[in-house]
Amino acid sequence: MFSEKLLKQIDFIREIDKVKYIQRKTRLFGSDRNENDAEHSWHLALMAIVLAEHSDEPVDILKVIKMVLIHDIVEIDAGDTFIYDQTKNHSNSTEERKAAERIFGLLPAAQATELIALWEEFEAGITSEARFAKAMDRLEPLLQNVSNNGGTWAEFGIDYHKVVEKKKQIEKGSASLWRYASQMIEESVEKGILRKQAQH
Amino acid sequence: MFSEKLLKQIDFIREIDKVKYIQRKTRLFGSDRNENDAEHSWHLALMAIVLAEHSDEPVDILKVIKMVLIHDIVEIDAGDTFIYDQTKNHSNSTEERKAAERIFGLLPAAQATELIALWEEFEAGITSEARFAKAMDRLEPLLQNVSNNGGTWAEFGIDYHKVVEKKKQIEKGSASLWRYASQMIEESVEKGILRKQAQH
Repeated sequence: MFSEKLLKQIDFIREIDKVKYIQRKTRLFGSDRNENDAEHSWHLALMAIVLAEHSDEPVDILKVIKMVLIHDIVEIDAGDTFIYDQTKNHSNSTEERKAAERIFGLLPAAQATELIALWEEFEAGITSEARFAKAMDRLEPLLQNVSNNGGTWAEFGIDYHKVVEKKKQIEKGSASLWRYASQMIEESVEKGILRKQAQH
Repeated sequence: MFSEKLLKQIDFIREIDKVKYIQRKTRLFGSDRNENDAEHSWHLALMAIVLAEHSDEPVDILKVIKMVLIHDIVEIDAGDTFIYDQTKNHSNSTEERKAAERIFGLLPAAQATELIALWEEFEAGITSEARFAKAMDRLEPLLQNVSNNGGTWAEFGIDYHKVVEKKKQIEKGSASLWRYASQMIEESVEKGILRKQAQH
């Protein structure tokens, strides 16, 4: 009675509900409540919409939005990797690749191919859309940590150099957002919520 | 040092974090955990992306996605209104209109105007994009309630006629999704998770 395509799409829609259970390390603004991947992805999509003009290069904003909406779906199988975790490679692991194939693979073939390609493009971080999407992904937790007196930096002993190393990704998408972000980082040191060097 | 526009955009980005605290009545799939508005909006955006082909009329999918991502932001001030609540008019109350002006009004003027207009277009439900966006908004909790053995229907004593009355909105956006939704409703009655008539 219903097309196979529709039934596959509904299966995918049911499956991705699990994204709402994946807890990130970062916490909501001025809060001790951890953010989950669905909330995070929603926030990045809205950031992309309102900050689009700050992209250094013209971007296909629909593509950026799709990227940020789907970028963490692989974590249903692979789990959240903390950006400052040095034991695990954050980007496009075999585990994540398999997860992408399984989860997007629930969709009709053409859609599965499109979303896997989009996820890979995001992970590769080369196109202007991927660079802007990644800038959003780095900026949101920076705003959150500043609002939480250092948040995960304080909690996990992350120092200034590590933060700059990771957040410099923002510069690849937007010079003006990077200027804003780096001022926030400098101010965090001045306020004493980010250490210049990790304690030994 | 930073443009006034950017500072306004960041203010808006901080403010909308509150959407993550607004609890809906419906619960996640196969779960007793309430969904919040940010998770709900993220899910609708992905549904719109994968189900777009089922729209009866061609839609500007970027516009549909923006609509569903922002449609509940007014609830930061106005709170969530349960769709089956008969004491409160669900659509575009004075309270929600004021909320839209305050919250979207944090943005630079042109963006505020655009997003308020988009929210009003969604609420009015007349354009093809608004009708498809509303179909997503009705379909998600239907899938959730079915997965939860009746969910809010059982919990709040909602009967078949009320469900059909509200879910019929789906038909305005998509005949095929309405066919799927109405079969789910009929099956729910057969399975005994939705009563034909409310108990008195």
